[in-house]
Amino acid sequence: MKFDLNKSYEILERTPAVLKMLLLNLSEDWVLQNEGPDTFSPYDVIGHLIHGEKTDWRNRAIMILQHGLTKSFIPFDRFAQFEASRGKSIEQLLTEFENLRKDNLAWLQSLELTNNDLGKKGSHPGLGEVTLQQLLTTWVVHDLTHIAQVTRVMAKQYKQEIGPWVEYFRILDF
Amino acid sequence: MKFDLNKSYEILERTPAVLKMLLLNLSEDWVLQNEGPDTFSPYDVIGHLIHGEKTDWRNRAIMILQHGLTKSFIPFDRFAQFEASRGKSIEQLLTEFENLRKDNLAWLQSLELTNNDLGKKGSHPGLGEVTLQQLLTTWVVHDLTHIAQVTRVMAKQYKQEIGPWVEYFRILDF
Repeated sequence: MKFDLNKSYEILERTPAVLKMLLLNLSEDWVLQNEGPDTFSPYDVIGHLIHGEKTDWRNRAIMILQHGLTKSFIPFDRFAQFEASRGKSIEQLLTEFENLRKDNLAWLQSLELTNNDLGKKGSHPGLGEVTLQQLLTTWVVHDLTHIAQVTRVMAKQYKQEIGPWVEYFRILDF
Repeated sequence: MKFDLNKSYEILERTPAVLKMLLLNLSEDWVLQNEGPDTFSPYDVIGHLIHGEKTDWRNRAIMILQHGLTKSFIPFDRFAQFEASRGKSIEQLLTEFENLRKDNLAWLQSLELTNNDLGKKGSHPGLGEVTLQQLLTTWVVHDLTHIAQVTRVMAKQYKQEIGPWVEYFRILDF
């Protein structure tokens, strides 16, 4: 599938609602458990997505449009949410994410990006040259893979309880 | 996490709404593409979930409660949806799944299962002895892993478009 701005919006604008539907009013066991040391719980993932809205996608798009290859992106802190989410409920985090995403998409649409804009390049600190189009595509993929992660993490909480069926669920070993 | 009937309901009752939020009003490219030969698209997954509501979970629970180990479950057809979904829109499938799930959960609650019931055993054609509790737990895990699958399949459609970022997404190689 080729990049398409409208098809990308379709995903970006629904992710907060999907995660709300998935995670609101759940028992804490579903929301706070992770996959082991140095892994994210669903709660951690929402904090991570919030940090992305605040420091990653929009800021890097601006860097590309304003500075091109002359200035490298600021490295993203993958663990910032452990501090930033402290004391907040999952409801608060889901609403914060929803609001930030809404603002960022309104901003993105206001840019009225052209194909020429989408081809503009920036410098990623670890990956080198990337285009604005690749950044926006990655934003979409990042949403989808984190929903996949959240549901996998939740499924794993029951891994010990499904008995012999475990052999049919290759995904629980990921 | 130990099996808990209420925590299991929490997932089973929200799955249809999560999938609706994720898949309604999307471009066909997101819904109809799969991961390659002999894999499921999101559209196929909804058909597969419908077939499970019709022939698997409830029927097998009844088999356990009525026949115990004396009668083996009917093998599940993992490919029935390719025929059964033909001509139906994704909206129709999502609504069909929602209605079947609602009925099956109302039925399940009407059983007022005891711990003694949950420990009752049945005979799986491929796995041997399983308990009713393991069957119900697997129903939950099956929901969650199929949401994970659907979002992974969607993310993969953009795999070629994210450029160098692909190395950060191990999940796209699953």
